[in-house]
Amino acid sequence: MARAVRYIKDNPMAFLLLTFPVVILAELAHWQPMVVFALSAVAIIPLAGYIGQSTESLAHYTGPRLGGLLNATLGNAAELIITIVAIREGLLELVKASITGSILGNLLLVLGMSMLLGGLRNGHQTFDRRQASNNAVLLLMSVIILLIPSLLSHYIGHVEPPDDKVEILSLGVAGVMMILYILGLIFSYKTTKTPLTPEHPVAALPLNAWPLRVALVILVLSTVGVAYMSEVLVGAVDPVVKALGISEFFIGIIFIPIIGNVAEHLVAVQVAVKNKMTLSVEIAVASSLQIALFVAPVLVFISLLMGQRLTLVFNQFELLALIAGVLIAAVVSADGESHWLEGAELLGIYLILVLAFFLLPI
Amino acid sequence: MARAVRYIKDNPMAFLLLTFPVVILAELAHWQPMVVFALSAVAIIPLAGYIGQSTESLAHYTGPRLGGLLNATLGNAAELIITIVAIREGLLELVKASITGSILGNLLLVLGMSMLLGGLRNGHQTFDRRQASNNAVLLLMSVIILLIPSLLSHYIGHVEPPDDKVEILSLGVAGVMMILYILGLIFSYKTTKTPLTPEHPVAALPLNAWPLRVALVILVLSTVGVAYMSEVLVGAVDPVVKALGISEFFIGIIFIPIIGNVAEHLVAVQVAVKNKMTLSVEIAVASSLQIALFVAPVLVFISLLMGQRLTLVFNQFELLALIAGVLIAAVVSADGESHWLEGAELLGIYLILVLAFFLLPI
Amino acid sequence: MARAVRYIKDNPMAFLLLTFPVVILAELAHWQPMVVFALSAVAIIPLAGYIGQSTESLAHYTGPRLGGLLNATLGNAAELIITIVAIREGLLELVKASITGSILGNLLLVLGMSMLLGGLRNGHQTFDRRQASNNAVLLLMSVIILLIPSLLSHYIGHVEPPDDKVEILSLGVAGVMMILYILGLIFSYKTTKTPLTPEHPVAALPLNAWPLRVALVILVLSTVGVAYMSEVLVGAVDPVVKALGISEFFIGIIFIPIIGNVAEHLVAVQVAVKNKMTLSVEIAVASSLQIALFVAPVLVFISLLMGQRLTLVFNQFELLALIAGVLIAAVVSADGESHWLEGAELLGIYLILVLAFFLLPI
Repeated sequence: MARAVRYIKDNPMAFLLLTFPVVILAELAHWQPMVVFALSAVAIIPLAGYIGQSTESLAHYTGPRLGGLLNATLGNAAELIITIVAIREGLLELVKASITGSILGNLLLVLGMSMLLGGLRNGHQTFDRRQASNNAVLLLMSVIILLIPSLLSHYIGHVEPPDDKVEILSLGVAGVMMILYILGLIFSYKTTKTPLTPEHPVAALPLNAWPLRVALVILVLSTVGVAYMSEVLVGAVDPVVKALGISEFFIGIIFIPIIGNVAEHLVAVQVAVKNKMTLSVEIAVASSLQIALFVAPVLVFISLLMGQRLTLVFNQFELLALIAGVLIAAVVSADGESHWLEGAELLGIYLILVLAFFLLPI
Repeated sequence: MARAVRYIKDNPMAFLLLTFPVVILAELAHWQPMVVFALSAVAIIPLAGYIGQSTESLAHYTGPRLGGLLNATLGNAAELIITIVAIREGLLELVKASITGSILGNLLLVLGMSMLLGGLRNGHQTFDRRQASNNAVLLLMSVIILLIPSLLSHYIGHVEPPDDKVEILSLGVAGVMMILYILGLIFSYKTTKTPLTPEHPVAALPLNAWPLRVALVILVLSTVGVAYMSEVLVGAVDPVVKALGISEFFIGIIFIPIIGNVAEHLVAVQVAVKNKMTLSVEIAVASSLQIALFVAPVLVFISLLMGQRLTLVFNQFELLALIAGVLIAAVVSADGESHWLEGAELLGIYLILVLAFFLLPI
Repeated sequence: MARAVRYIKDNPMAFLLLTFPVVILAELAHWQPMVVFALSAVAIIPLAGYIGQSTESLAHYTGPRLGGLLNATLGNAAELIITIVAIREGLLELVKASITGSILGNLLLVLGMSMLLGGLRNGHQTFDRRQASNNAVLLLMSVIILLIPSLLSHYIGHVEPPDDKVEILSLGVAGVMMILYILGLIFSYKTTKTPLTPEHPVAALPLNAWPLRVALVILVLSTVGVAYMSEVLVGAVDPVVKALGISEFFIGIIFIPIIGNVAEHLVAVQVAVKNKMTLSVEIAVASSLQIALFVAPVLVFISLLMGQRLTLVFNQFELLALIAGVLIAAVVSADGESHWLEGAELLGIYLILVLAFFLLPI
């Protein structure tokens, strides 16, 4: 008992696990959809964290190379699960929005918080300009590829269902992304510089790696848990949209990315506060790269298997927000220096984007 | 008398003050609006210069920290006065255009002249890459925030009067800008690196600080003078637009920024010729930052008080010109090096933009 | 005979010259247009190479300064000849597309191949960050100028024939470009840093400079050859467009730039494989600059003389592709480092753009 209490003290997030049984109760008792939505969202946060932690632990045993592969693949597992469930339910707007929302969240919210809090604690912070810049350039190029189908679609003029040409181009983009992802893994495997997987936070944060068997069990359990909670969450989206008047798009672009990544985000910020800014920037950029090169094409292919037409067409607002985000990341990285005012600016952009996405009539 | 002659020799711009009484005469005698417009424009140039010089002198007595605050607030005082008068007259297109025009003028015209003349005199010039890049990144981020309401407006489709959503977002942007401005002042107060206020030109150009009392009197007099001339100038805009066939937009985006900033611009160029390129770049970027973070939100709030709806909606042409301008500033700064060909390119962009703005049917 | 065999072994491209007589035969025998098109395209490749090689040889005798001028003017001679012939035939879409296509080909295809193959051979490659960045900034600024008429045209709304305002602006841009080109030559003449002409590959690749007289004869002959083949090629465009269903735009943006520049492209890639990355980046960027500052305005002026209205209006897709291309070039250059994954990303962008241009309904 005392050990459990101490564990929760050290890992306050574990406390959120208590919402898990409440969600089951809520489902059975048919509580208000809004309550169910909120509770299941909260329950996903620690579960996503456990997926991450067990991946880290596994990486401990597999060695850095295979560990890199694990990290690059499971790094956004929670979000992938939520969006796959959403595809099955036909919530394609939400799924697409979550792709851009994740990248924006990483580049503006996480980087902003890291630079703000890290800068307030440590003053001017510097980071490895070269490594950061290299990764930011890869991200810029990947995002440009990601956006080309949208350009074609806007040029042709939107139609529902999407024009075949746009779908062909989306599939082409997904294919190229997958190839680049595999090349990225090979690149990571061969060099110590790893655009897709940040150097393990192990080095930075004290992690007591779980025993191999425990790590595997926790990975399986938390994955199942996220899958179940995702069902509940996604099932509540429609009633919530109707009740609150916020759009499916807004839930996808703001909520889903936050829910699925809180744990990872916290690591990036903690690391920044400990003045390890290089790693903090790396986490944000690597996670964005994973979304563009791995999550996005996987979702396209899975939707194809499920008979849904998920085309990589984002609205003009998302396009410009994404381009702004990656440009800022590139410019900030090229700089190699950060301070709290820069962090405040990034948060300012994110805040205004949230307001704009909220006001956007979809 | 001899002293007055010598003063004018040292300060040839003071000569332009002679237009001041002529304007009063012109007003009384109901001269042609075009003549009145031109004369009042010329009269504002030295007055704006005196506001700047008296601010510098005051900063001399208040110490660098309070001086920084003075500079960051009064740095664009002349333009602020002109635009406030214009808001009262309902010339909102002119006011909005002057915001983008000021930033473009600083980043293309002033930086271009500085690099061209500085480079012709001194060959390849280098400047503090880090400091310049830091400020350029802040500027890039601020301008991105500034542009978000326009994106929403274009997405919704323009309507007159502007959609409430666009106005809410404009106010949100103005609020965030103000907060970032205050944070910027705090940042400047705490560190020696001051994005909002360039290191005082005092160090670079010989300035005989006026006695405190003189500085205050000149500040008040020149402010009153600018206010009066602005009334005259703004009153002549409508007839000039009709007579010349140029748009209110063109006057706002090209003329107003030049009139209000000639004095400051000259300092930036002189400093570049003296091969103090770091300061020259700083002046151009800091002035742009002041426009985005201070002048723009102040104008939004003041228009609200005056019952006018100044929404931060710029046309697509301005948007792209602004983005191009800040991107170039960011890339040029990251470089840390300039030469006259770069200056010529910047002037080329400005020239073609002027032609395009002139041709733009508004 | 043995010498001829050895020559072809050393210069496998010379082999392609054999298509030249076949084209003449094909013309006389009225072969299928598609065959004629393909053959004449192949025949241009080695001829363009000979123009380049004879220019290099001439530069050997004129000294570096006049040589720089020769290179900057004849560097894209083959493409210039093809497009001038196309203007005469009224294929303005093809001509405009070839301008953007050349820049994109240099920045994505050539740079991508160089970084991919160079990186696979040499691992992480570094290059002179400063020089590359300087040139990339000039390119970014030049391309921004080039795009302004398109913005005006999109703002006004497209009309056929183009609005007079757009044409005035196009001429203004062409004029400014020409001035910047001349300034660029003066700049090159005065400093050793030469944005418009890469340091002669002579230093990097063993070139047996031809005797002066031979070089002149070969220059004249290959120019005449390219002109003749261009006639044949351009004459076959219309039937090919009808037979294959691909657009004149696609031929202009993908095929023409490749045909005219294969030889130069190969040099850039060979140089990268030899780990002289600074030169490789310089060739790609300088060639793009020549297109923007020299080829584009020359085409505008020549079309004016020929009574055609070639306005510098590109479609939105081209605009964004161009901006992406120069931004990437700027960011990649600022970095000063390349590896094969970066090359693969560049090729990925090019590939998806080719697919998009193919799908684009024009």
